[in-house]
This record gives sequence, C-alpha cells and structure tokens, in this order.
Amino acid sequence: MMSGSVSLIGAGPGDPELLTRRAAARLRRADLVLFDALVDGRVLRLARRAEQVFVGKRVGQRAIAQGTIHALMIDAAQRGRYVVRLKGGDPLVFGRGGEEALALQAAGVPFEIIPGISSATAAPAAAGIPATHRGFASGFVVISGHSGQSVSTMLAAIAPNMVTLIVLMGLQGRHTLTADLLARGWRADLPAAVVLNAWCTGQHVWRGVLAQMPQAIVQTGAPGTIVIGETAALHLHSPFTPARLR
Amino acid sequence: MMSGSVSLIGAGPGDPELLTRRAAARLRRADLVLFDALVDGRVLRLARRAEQVFVGKRVGQRAIAQGTIHALMIDAAQRGRYVVRLKGGDPLVFGRGGEEALALQAAGVPFEIIPGISSATAAPAAAGIPATHRGFASGFVVISGHSGQSVSTMLAAIAPNMVTLIVLMGLQGRHTLTADLLARGWRADLPAAVVLNAWCTGQHVWRGVLAQMPQAIVQTGAPGTIVIGETAALHLHSPFTPARLR
Repeated sequence: MMSGSVSLIGAGPGDPELLTRRAAARLRRADLVLFDALVDGRVLRLARRAEQVFVGKRVGQRAIAQGTIHALMIDAAQRGRYVVRLKGGDPLVFGRGGEEALALQAAGVPFEIIPGISSATAAPAAAGIPATHRGFASGFVVISGHSGQSVSTMLAAIAPNMVTLIVLMGLQGRHTLTADLLARGWRADLPAAVVLNAWCTGQHVWRGVLAQMPQAIVQTGAPGTIVIGETAALHLHSPFTPARLR
Repeated sequence: MMSGSVSLIGAGPGDPELLTRRAAARLRRADLVLFDALVDGRVLRLARRAEQVFVGKRVGQRAIAQGTIHALMIDAAQRGRYVVRLKGGDPLVFGRGGEEALALQAAGVPFEIIPGISSATAAPAAAGIPATHRGFASGFVVISGHSGQSVSTMLAAIAPNMVTLIVLMGLQGRHTLTADLLARGWRADLPAAVVLNAWCTGQHVWRGVLAQMPQAIVQTGAPGTIVIGETAALHLHSPFTPARLR
C-alpha cells in the first residue's frame, strides 16, 4: 500500500502573491487542505482540486483540538491522500507546526516543512517599519501575546528599550502588555505601532508611542501585530505603482 | 519625463522555489538587478532580460560602498529603468534595506519593499528546528554576529536560557560568542546547531551543545546561521519525496 504524505506549509501574511512558488505548486496538487483562520481565501483558490477543511479557531467558538488535527492529517495520508496543512505565516513560528511534525513522525507519515514569511517581519514591513535598522536596533525579539503568563515570563527575559519588540497575537492583551512594559522600565515615549490585516484588504496601521497603545482604536477580531521600539518611528513609504512597470 | 522605479526584494534563503510569486514576477520584468552575495544563481536566472550587477561583498575584497549602491539605484531609476534590488533573506532584517529605502525616498524615486523569508527562521527550519515550540521556547531573539561590539550589547539585553537565540552572520565570531554566552550564565549543555548553506546545495548541519560550538567543524566562507536553545535539540525530519506526489 502506497502511503500518502503531508506538506506543512506557511502561507505567509495573506496576500497570495507573497506565497512561495513551492507552496503554490503544492497547493495545486493537494487532495486535502487543512487550513487555519489566518489563511486568506485567495490562497485557498489555488487548491482547485482539493477538499478544503477549516480547522482554525473562530471568535466565540471552541477550537478544534490539536489532536483532532493530527488524526485528520495522519488518517488521510494513511489512506494515500496528499495533504497540505496550511498555516498563516510560518509553520514553526508560533504555528504549532513542530507538534504536528512530531505527530506525523511518530505515525511514520512522510512530511516536509515549507517555510513562509512570518508576520513577525512582514507585518512591520507592510507599515514601512524595519525589524532592524542601523543606529535604531541591531536585534529583534518575537513573542506571542496569546498567553498572558508566557508574555510576562518573556518580558522578564528582555532588557528594556534595547531591541525591536514584536508581539504576535497580542491585540487583546495590549493593555496588560503596555502596563507590564512600563513597569519594567520601557520608555513611555518609545515609538509603537499596531499593524492590522497586514498585506490584506483592510490593512490599517496605528502609530504612536508605547504609553498611548491601550488607547489605540483598533478593529477587534482582526489579526494584528504590535511593534515597539525606535524602528517603529520609521515610515518607509513611496507611491510605487506596479501597473506602470513595463 | 517618466521616472523608473525600484523594488527592494527579499530573495529568501536561496532556493528559487522559496522565492515569493511576486518576487519572481518582478524579476522577469526588471531592467537592472543589483544583487548581493547571498543571492543564489538560480534566482538570478529568472531575470532574463535584466542587466545583472553584483554589489555584494566577496571574501578578501573590499565591499562596494553603501552610497554607491544608492547612487546606482537612483541613477538608473531616474533614467526610466525598472530596478530590482535583490537581497538574501528579507530586506528589512539586517539587510540595510531601510537605509536604501530612505535614500530612494529622499531622491523621490518610487519604490516598494517585498518581504522575503529570512534565514532567521528558514535556516533553523531547514535543519528541522522550530523557532518556537510548546514547552521548549515561547519566544525568539534574532541578532547579527557581524559586529562583535553589537553582539555583546545585544547579549547583555537577554536573560540566559529563556529564548531561542538565532545569530545570523555569526560564524566567524562563534568563539567569542560562545565565551560571552557562557560568561553570562547560558548553560554549557544548552542544545546548539549551526546550519550552513540552508536550502541550498551543500547544506550542512552541525548539532551539539553550546560549549562545543567553537569546535564545530564548519566550512569557512559559507553563510551560516547559529541556533542556541532547547528547540535546537529537535530534529523534525522525514523522508518526504515530492516526486511521488500525483
């Protein structure tokens, strides 16, 4: 019996043009696509012949258990299907891709991991904010704001005002995050930005300083990335028009 | 007079299949490509009709001054050409892309920034090492090992043993880096890995623990990424064969 296989693929920040060429090629061949909440519909349209199953978390609804996702992948592959497990951003950056790879490994299902552009760098870039910039920041830290306890532990590990701090999935907890940072000696006037729906329809950027962040009016429910540090004051922007290219 | 324009593009880790679809499309339309040392020849072949100029740094040779690169871009664009400035990884992660964007902005040249997959996450992924993993690390730090002084400043800002530490361009300085980390309380037996030529021909991975890193036998001159932390002990690996996909 010939076994199927699984590709754990990072879909990048949303725009299908920011998908890698390999990810696009794999999607076209998929029998089954298991996709997360942050995956854009335009990306899914590439998987023309695949059955498409949403396995993400929707606001106000209980998430599908991680074990169920593992079982879906393994079962389909063992029945000979080619499965694409599609995640927003990169599968190994807060994507639980490592856990899924270990489950596949344990089940003896052949798999590959295809990296994608993480929102950690793509969301700031969408707002014209570099992760590093000479004279501004020579390093950056990426944490997830998803769990309050883990945020606090992570913040304790970083000296204030030295690096660009990038917080994924931290929108809901930005009040606590701000209070925590200020208490740890991060400057109240440190530049800060919130990038919503980066590289997607409805992209919106809030800019200000750290102390103002709790008051930032941001759309609830939209995926957002927080950037705190000197580079957040930069705004690399230009009226580029691709249509004018020859 | 119609002005030309510039796309600052991240080429990703090297493999042309990990280029974004937009980057590939832009390369096909470019009149001039200014590329760095870390850009793979297979990526350049996409820019069929473009003049291709190497502006990177070669071992033992003096690098082209940053100001010269700015002048080349601005001059070509002002003469109506469409320029692709192609960088390894992501243009805004230690790529001086921010400086180049500011120069274009000051000169009034229309530009765009197209993110790429940074080696910060792609190189560990090539070795089956996740940047974050439940129970192992809930955050990661990215620094450049290029300048010894800046490394030391950055390390002073991070508490030991808490996050995945990813060091780009740190191969030459790994002896000093290791000594510095051990002196700051990082565990001698903390898992460590060095990934050379990630996603390219000649990919090689060294695995061990922090204290052994200076003795790691690694090819000199090859681009390498250092990963230090609990996740470096993971090895997500499988005998996946794309040829067997339908």
